[in-house]
Amino acid sequence: MHKIPNLKTALNVPLLELEKICLQHQHEIEHWFRSKWHTNKPPFYGSVDLRNSSYKLTPVDMNLFPGGFNNINPDFIPLAVQAVNNLIERYCPNATKVLLIPENHTRNLAYLKNVYTLNFILEQAGIKTVIGSLSEEITEATTINVTDELTMTYYPLIRENNRIKTTNGFDACTILLNNDLSNGKPAILENIEQILLPPLNAGWYMRKKTNYFTQYDIVCDEFANVINIDPWLINAYFDIATDLDFANNQGIEILAQKVDTIINKIKSKYAENNITDTPYVVVKANNGTYGMGIMTVKSGDEILKINRKSKNKMAVIKDGQTVHDVIIQEGVYTFEKINNQVSEPVIYMMDSAVIGGFYRVHPKKDVNENLNAMGAHFIPLTYACEALPGKTKHPECCAPNRFYTYSVIARLALLASSYEIKTYL
Amino acid sequence: MHKIPNLKTALNVPLLELEKICLQHQHEIEHWFRSKWHTNKPPFYGSVDLRNSSYKLTPVDMNLFPGGFNNINPDFIPLAVQAVNNLIERYCPNATKVLLIPENHTRNLAYLKNVYTLNFILEQAGIKTVIGSLSEEITEATTINVTDELTMTYYPLIRENNRIKTTNGFDACTILLNNDLSNGKPAILENIEQILLPPLNAGWYMRKKTNYFTQYDIVCDEFANVINIDPWLINAYFDIATDLDFANNQGIEILAQKVDTIINKIKSKYAENNITDTPYVVVKANNGTYGMGIMTVKSGDEILKINRKSKNKMAVIKDGQTVHDVIIQEGVYTFEKINNQVSEPVIYMMDSAVIGGFYRVHPKKDVNENLNAMGAHFIPLTYACEALPGKTKHPECCAPNRFYTYSVIARLALLASSYEIKTYL
Repeated sequence: MHKIPNLKTALNVPLLELEKICLQHQHEIEHWFRSKWHTNKPPFYGSVDLRNSSYKLTPVDMNLFPGGFNNINPDFIPLAVQAVNNLIERYCPNATKVLLIPENHTRNLAYLKNVYTLNFILEQAGIKTVIGSLSEEITEATTINVTDELTMTYYPLIRENNRIKTTNGFDACTILLNNDLSNGKPAILENIEQILLPPLNAGWYMRKKTNYFTQYDIVCDEFANVINIDPWLINAYFDIATDLDFANNQGIEILAQKVDTIINKIKSKYAENNITDTPYVVVKANNGTYGMGIMTVKSGDEILKINRKSKNKMAVIKDGQTVHDVIIQEGVYTFEKINNQVSEPVIYMMDSAVIGGFYRVHPKKDVNENLNAMGAHFIPLTYACEALPGKTKHPECCAPNRFYTYSVIARLALLASSYEIKTYL
Repeated sequence: MHKIPNLKTALNVPLLELEKICLQHQHEIEHWFRSKWHTNKPPFYGSVDLRNSSYKLTPVDMNLFPGGFNNINPDFIPLAVQAVNNLIERYCPNATKVLLIPENHTRNLAYLKNVYTLNFILEQAGIKTVIGSLSEEITEATTINVTDELTMTYYPLIRENNRIKTTNGFDACTILLNNDLSNGKPAILENIEQILLPPLNAGWYMRKKTNYFTQYDIVCDEFANVINIDPWLINAYFDIATDLDFANNQGIEILAQKVDTIINKIKSKYAENNITDTPYVVVKANNGTYGMGIMTVKSGDEILKINRKSKNKMAVIKDGQTVHDVIIQEGVYTFEKINNQVSEPVIYMMDSAVIGGFYRVHPKKDVNENLNAMGAHFIPLTYACEALPGKTKHPECCAPNRFYTYSVIARLALLASSYEIKTYL
């Protein structure tokens, strides 16, 4: 149940040249990461969506407020606990408490399980954790059912001078946000004296995907030098279009032109690498999340011809926010299938460590589509031996090499978010 | 196969009072460990044998040169890799290579698998690892078969000034000993400029169990204050007898007296705690390993009456060393059974983290006997959710609380070895 049903089915593409190179350079890569984490504080946590087209492997989205901890293989919770332990041991050995601020919705069972799991991980690391909610609906200590057997309690937040506490008097030196602040900067969190992770300005009210991918460009260029590859193999072209108003066709022509520019850049890379796939781009709300505000097109012309329904879908995202900025991102096909359904890996990290992940699988989507949509399901990665390189084999298990490359690209994505977070401080 | 067949069978004793206390104090305990590791460098690795009599849980042996990495659940190799990564990131971020020195015997397949697994773990952390052997039989690069498919190469060691290298020119800044140096301090390792882990004087030619347990006493007294328990619940009485010659009955009477003293101390503790078991002690070679030189007795009188065969067994241990010193250690019953066979947990640690373990199970031994003997087999611990406290339950798994207490006592044992190693520097 928690294992990939059939690894050969899950990974039906040929071994990437990139994977061979990563394995050959494993010592340099691990050493490089260690030196990077020595000078760049890893974020508390993060998750990254990868796309593997067999000729390239790239992050397409980096989540600084990861949900879905309930979807990772529960066998690997100890990895998360160990990461939290290390993080605290290194940066704040005196920390004993964390105030966890989740998303406001309290009826999304999957999300509640995520909060529960995160709370569990923190508690296992010996961190006393209390959940404080920003939701106006939480006006008193509220017991929330996660399963028939399991409950958790959400407390209202109160502010006393420059400290946030919960109404039951819980006062922590560290506040962990699992709320992406899509609908604005909550006044209660401004100018507080406690450590807020990630920082307030990393919230989606402020964060832009293009800021993140600008940092990822820097990371890729550095890393590509280490293993001597074309950075395009691990990166996707992108551009930004601003001042858009989909409802009134404002800015659409410029967007269409930019789409064509990216398409042409992809075309020449495809030609250079003898790739016969059709180039496409993904247009996404620059501050979007939850898989909303996303559109896949193969030309600028398609943008000019989109119908009202598609426009409406692009115009508004989570919490009713209007879309004015978009990122135009090179589309990366996913050629991974599980049970013949299109899938993409999502990798979770805490501190500098990969702690697990899952395949996002969608029975009704195609290889060039966004899979973060209603109807997706999740198959936990057997991060374990399989997540490790098999240059030499562990005597007791086989170790497909693919997962090592996933862990490398995921950590590059994490490093970029570490760079990005510095820009918000 | 890698799971405990039936957890309820494995853990057939009632939940210890101690376990409840550990769970109640989990936040304080984890915080205490973090502060301890902040000021005391954990050893590179170690394994500890625990005995659980339901009324007490104590370490009875701490191995600074752990074999048996092949017996831990391969699913948890990532925990070991993460621990190695953290260790290096913290203490020597520039380290890229390790020279691994194994035991000399090259025909013990189980031990070879251990070396292979250890090498694998280091390689996964991006540490270039070469195996250099102290054995006189290794006079050139020698390929060793671990399984039909897997091989590894042992290289002879050479010394150039104050550096040890292998004959293929491998020069590492760190040397990891997996050879317990039972038969003396190898001249080639004396006064080298490289970092040697553990230090040379931690070898069994010099190390004494009583030195270790003296440090463990200190750790226990400190920790018992933190959670307000009688340290006896997590510690076993011990004493030392020296200048022994079993063959010539020298020192045997004093040994017998000391046995009675310990037995009497146990008796009064048993009375105090309403325990009806019969007290016993285990007499072990003070520098012994591999389960050799061990004897279980219920009175000093038994010592005086042991037959020639038992004397001979006590007189000589690994690599033909004669026994002159013994530790007289309070015997701790093990009331854990797997498939109705007597078993005891062995816990593995790297850096400050528990990375796995197994049950040592012996079909022919009794609850008061040493299980580290021919005929033992190993069932990997499902360290995972089950290894974590279930004060709150993870939604996807049940989490017996027992393993948390194991991890606490194992880490106390590790901390004591950290104290001990300081005495060898």
